[in-house]
Amino acid sequence: MIIKTQDMNVEQRTGEREGTLTTLLENSQMHNKSSLFAKITLKPGRKTPYHKHEGDCEVYYIVSGHAQVNDNGSLKDVKAGDIIFTDNGESHSLENIGDTDLEFIALILKL
Amino acid sequence: MIIKTQDMNVEQRTGEREGTLTTLLENSQMHNKSSLFAKITLKPGRKTPYHKHEGDCEVYYIVSGHAQVNDNGSLKDVKAGDIIFTDNGESHSLENIGDTDLEFIALILKL
Repeated sequence: MIIKTQDMNVEQRTGEREGTLTTLLENSQMHNKSSLFAKITLKPGRKTPYHKHEGDCEVYYIVSGHAQVNDNGSLKDVKAGDIIFTDNGESHSLENIGDTDLEFIALILKL
Repeated sequence: MIIKTQDMNVEQRTGEREGTLTTLLENSQMHNKSSLFAKITLKPGRKTPYHKHEGDCEVYYIVSGHAQVNDNGSLKDVKAGDIIFTDNGESHSLENIGDTDLEFIALILKL
């Protein structure tokens, strides 16, 4: 099955997380192995809130832009091609510290 | 955990699949829920061989380039942002029909 980018469901987000969330595949299509598989954009200066994963793990793949991640309490810069892996019991947030939109793929796998 | 792109394991591939396979996360890091999580590049004119998935499903996310997919017998063009989902029992191949490298993320989920 092909899903063209223009046919995907896009959620416009406002506030701290200003940007978009594009669902790449529904959880049911992923045989309920995941609870999120999405492309997320964040406007410059915006961020995902710091939160802890319990009962799952999350992967971010940076597609484009420049971000700072809070990786379980440790701050690091990330760019296109980098992976952020937040395992069960760990926490993270991601902030767009560049001048352009930050785009990343987010996948939450249930454990 | 952050994994910088320059620290990832890159396999150079030759022949029909000429390009690279960069492992994004090892299967053990993915709690063995996946059997592949990689960024794959294909040189112009190169392709992944047509193959059937049994006992798992595979997602391709096109990062950049222009490709033709054989989606279970049906030929379709795909570009950046598109998803190809090959479910258990289905088959696919992907050919770079553009002038630049094709880059995509591949994820195989075990069922």
